[in-house]
Amino acid sequence: YGKNTIKFLRLHKEGKKQFVKEVEVCAHLRLTSPQEYLEGNNSLVIPTDTIKNIVLVLAKKNGISSLEQFAIDICNHFMTTFCQVAYVKAYVQEVPWQRLHEDGVPHIHSFICVPDGIRFCEAEQCRNGPLIVFAGIKDLKLMKTTQSGFEGFYKNEHTTLPERHDRILCGEFFCKWSYGECKDFDFNCIWKKIRECILEAFAGPPDCGEYSPSYQKTVNCIQMLVLSRVPQVQVIEVVLNNTFYNVVDMKNLGLTNDKEVLVPVETPYGSCACTLGRKTFFEA
Amino acid sequence: YGKNTIKFLRLHKEGKKQFVKEVEVCAHLRLTSPQEYLEGNNSLVIPTDTIKNIVLVLAKKNGISSLEQFAIDICNHFMTTFCQVAYVKAYVQEVPWQRLHEDGVPHIHSFICVPDGIRFCEAEQCRNGPLIVFAGIKDLKLMKTTQSGFEGFYKNEHTTLPERHDRILCGEFFCKWSYGECKDFDFNCIWKKIRECILEAFAGPPDCGEYSPSYQKTVNCIQMLVLSRVPQVQVIEVVLNNTFYNVVDMKNLGLTNDKEVLVPVETPYGSCACTLGRKTFFEA
Amino acid sequence: YGKNTIKFLRLHKEGKKQFVKEVEVCAHLRLTSPQEYLEGNNSLVIPTDTIKNIVLVLAKKNGISSLEQFAIDICNHFMTTFCQVAYVKAYVQEVPWQRLHEDGVPHIHSFICVPDGIRFCEAEQCRNGPLIVFAGIKDLKLMKTTQSGFEGFYKNEHTTLPERHDRILCGEFFCKWSYGECKDFDFNCIWKKIRECILEAFAGPPDCGEYSPSYQKTVNCIQMLVLSRVPQVQVIEVVLNNTFYNVVDMKNLGLTNDKEVLVPVETPYGSCACTLGRKTFFEA
Amino acid sequence: YGKNTIKFLRLHKEGKKQFVKEVEVCAHLRLTSPQEYLEGNNSLVIPTDTIKNIVLVLAKKNGISSLEQFAIDICNHFMTTFCQVAYVKAYVQEVPWQRLHEDGVPHIHSFICVPDGIRFCEAEQCRNGPLIVFAGIKDLKLMKTTQSGFEGFYKNEHTTLPERHDRILCGEFFCKWSYGECKDFDFNCIWKKIRECILEAFAGPPDCGEYSPSYQKTVNCIQMLVLSRVPQVQVIEVVLNNTFYNVVDMKNLGLTNDKEVLVPVETPYGSCACTLGRKTFFEA
Repeated sequence: YGKNTIKFLRLHKEGKKQFVKEVEVCAHLRLTSPQEYLEGNNSLVIPTDTIKNIVLVLAKKNGISSLEQFAIDICNHFMTTFCQVAYVKAYVQEVPWQRLHEDGVPHIHSFICVPDGIRFCEAEQCRNGPLIVFAGIKDLKLMKTTQSGFEGFYKNEHTTLPERHDRILCGEFFCKWSYGECKDFDFNCIWKKIRECILEAFAGPPDCGEYSPSYQKTVNCIQMLVLSRVPQVQVIEVVLNNTFYNVVDMKNLGLTNDKEVLVPVETPYGSCACTLGRKTFFEA
Repeated sequence: YGKNTIKFLRLHKEGKKQFVKEVEVCAHLRLTSPQEYLEGNNSLVIPTDTIKNIVLVLAKKNGISSLEQFAIDICNHFMTTFCQVAYVKAYVQEVPWQRLHEDGVPHIHSFICVPDGIRFCEAEQCRNGPLIVFAGIKDLKLMKTTQSGFEGFYKNEHTTLPERHDRILCGEFFCKWSYGECKDFDFNCIWKKIRECILEAFAGPPDCGEYSPSYQKTVNCIQMLVLSRVPQVQVIEVVLNNTFYNVVDMKNLGLTNDKEVLVPVETPYGSCACTLGRKTFFEA
Repeated sequence: YGKNTIKFLRLHKEGKKQFVKEVEVCAHLRLTSPQEYLEGNNSLVIPTDTIKNIVLVLAKKNGISSLEQFAIDICNHFMTTFCQVAYVKAYVQEVPWQRLHEDGVPHIHSFICVPDGIRFCEAEQCRNGPLIVFAGIKDLKLMKTTQSGFEGFYKNEHTTLPERHDRILCGEFFCKWSYGECKDFDFNCIWKKIRECILEAFAGPPDCGEYSPSYQKTVNCIQMLVLSRVPQVQVIEVVLNNTFYNVVDMKNLGLTNDKEVLVPVETPYGSCACTLGRKTFFEA
Repeated sequence: YGKNTIKFLRLHKEGKKQFVKEVEVCAHLRLTSPQEYLEGNNSLVIPTDTIKNIVLVLAKKNGISSLEQFAIDICNHFMTTFCQVAYVKAYVQEVPWQRLHEDGVPHIHSFICVPDGIRFCEAEQCRNGPLIVFAGIKDLKLMKTTQSGFEGFYKNEHTTLPERHDRILCGEFFCKWSYGECKDFDFNCIWKKIRECILEAFAGPPDCGEYSPSYQKTVNCIQMLVLSRVPQVQVIEVVLNNTFYNVVDMKNLGLTNDKEVLVPVETPYGSCACTLGRKTFFEA
């Protein structure tokens, strides 16, 4: 069993144009025997330092055409090289460098970090089992300033929340989906398409939006849209950590406040999570 | 389904002496129906705001005799009050306030925050299932400056790590254990005893220590000692995120360095985790 | 003397189109008398809670046409309302919400958080002194993958760094400038122009870039370009916290590495700072 | 001009007993000429890498008898070795490792991290100027559950805060003081004494405490006690970032709450700072 985190840059050139990927990789191994734990026998242990070397060598040899392909390469290497490995998982996350543009002209070797949703993926495999690939986006912060409410919820003597039909919907999304049998998928293209689905399902049509009766329903809309538009996705999990905003009561200060000034309610924040798959599968 | 985080102080007095608990509570609910997600029907949803009110009311009424008892109280409340709740989990974590002492005299109402390992617990229950209680300690940072090595590990063409028989063992521990049938346990007393076991198994006898052949073996020693000394513990999980330190090579600077100056190796750090139970159960 | 941090949303509509500013404001006061400290006499103290109310009321009444104008409004309010205030400083920072676009169409009420450089400003005033306005950008991360070196530096017996003429230049920028007499500046427009200057001076021409002989020279180029292009700027300070990357030595692993795989050197990172003004003024 | 951060361990043994210091060091240089910025001429620049080597070499040669002495050693080295250095500042901070005890017996080589206030110091010198030494404690969190109020403050139409004579006083302290002419001070002993003064002035007598009419007055009491008890201290600055706690209003929930359950008010937090010296010097 081992785990590590390694951060590195992979550069390549096409003519004079430079390309860069900066990634963080965690590789996670489970061995066939627990003898290292029980007996202090290290003979099967693959040191973190060796794992790091392997990841760097694979990056050098194969490049990083997509995060997913790189994670698959890592899994394949450990499974085929080390017979003492019972299970391997590779997590790969990207630092969101984007090419700089000056007046619309792309720069040949300069980049800016734009963290508006972080791309990641995971590949895992048990010995004699299938290779499973996940991909996702995290730290994606979205806000709707209207077309959101929360009404008709369960009430009892501990209820103090008023019903609201025009609140702010704001939160940080974590979305993770699994691919079925990975043939020759264009992982980069699919990821972009899914990101667009998430934004579209969150926001609704650009001219009018779409009413959200709860965070939960918005989570479900995102899942439904991704599953309907992207056939390669088998299951999709969405977690929404939402921030509540209260309209500031300014009566004591002699003013009306028509949803113009709002303050975030830091504690408690809410969170809702749901996993949705293609057939009868449902887990909340 | 809902989740929340709420932080609050619970004070009480005995005569003029004041006592304080500051805790963070996350309650996590799963409902019997997913209609909120699929249909936008909120009629069974218990708002985060209501959950917060309930937690505060329970703290007011029952006090916090132990984190574990408070988590049990929360589970019981949700299960007995709301028939739409299929599952409840309550996580409770303590802010480590300790009474101030002046020249050995305890102060009647002043406290200092001493975060040398954070106490937490978790209680969870499915409808018609047993109430399960976990407790733990996290963010516990320990170091041994000698009596630790790593030798005899697996080697191939990607190995560059040298064998070492006198390295630094340093890391952050996360330990979490489950109790069996919770009768009238003195949770506060047991927690302190387990913390002492962890420190003792990590460090060995005060006059000479005990050699650790690997992080993994140290993890196992901690688990074995806790299981042998504390009969109430059924299963114990230990995760160790270790920091590696390298002796600085000072040859180029014209100096020898006999393990006097070391620098931390920040990437990759290692991590090892193990869960150990009482009978035939083993998972790495 | 007082200080506070308050975070809030300011919404407004033009027809059905919604606009949002989320800001964090710190107001910092110094009073004419230290009697609160020395005597425990609170009669001149303006509580944090009152400061918060004033900031929210100003946001409600005036809106936030620009961060700078809002900071000026806050200073003016405290100076004209409270004769016990000897000095006031208002710091305003923006949460970088950007309007969502779907297929190029701007959304009427949905936003995404894009933290690629945080805008902030500061206004300060002593009683009977001028109002001074600063603006800036922070947490701006930029990288050049070539056209950067570091050669010809001072060497002695403690030098181990090799000279390099093709390294990575990567770092996080903090830039802060002051405006002269603030007449009717278009603060939003000027800020965007300065941001473009920073990117241009960092990167050089898009087709070939420009060689940087050191972090320090790049810092100076940014300052020179801003001062030459933006007459409203009087003084500009630039701090660059740079990240070093080392080409991984793969000889032991039987591979050459032609600047393809690099790892960040986390400790020590470097930092350089410089303040440059218009005339004879120079401070490093 | 340069700056760096370097973290390392310094070990030493006395017989079989092991001792450890883990420190973070920032060295900050200003050069006599800005030619590196203006002309890209690096010939006087001392690379971060060289600065790191020097710090490690000094640690190896001199050990770290106290943080202050180590900071002084660094300043002396740069001033005497490099004639192009116009100014040097060395900041040294300690990772709070404490020796483990088992049943009261100190362990020979095991340590636990106890961050109940972080010790730091700073030494700085301009060429031809005196060497000035500062020391301090930061991240020290203290709480009093009674004997604190805030009354009689300034009120106007924006005031909504009620007067309180029995609130919680809780906050994080930053204290930094300067020493006069540093002769043969026992910096370790003085630091401990000052820490005790801070705790005592905050808490008051252990059996009854002492009433605090404001955060500001408590800050002043700390300063006065340190200045009266520790003659080596010339000036002391104290910053208190306080956390406010509100008694939860439980009327709507049908309960009274006699200061038993309180929630922290996260935004805005308050902050007060004061610098107090020995003679006529005063700045708030």
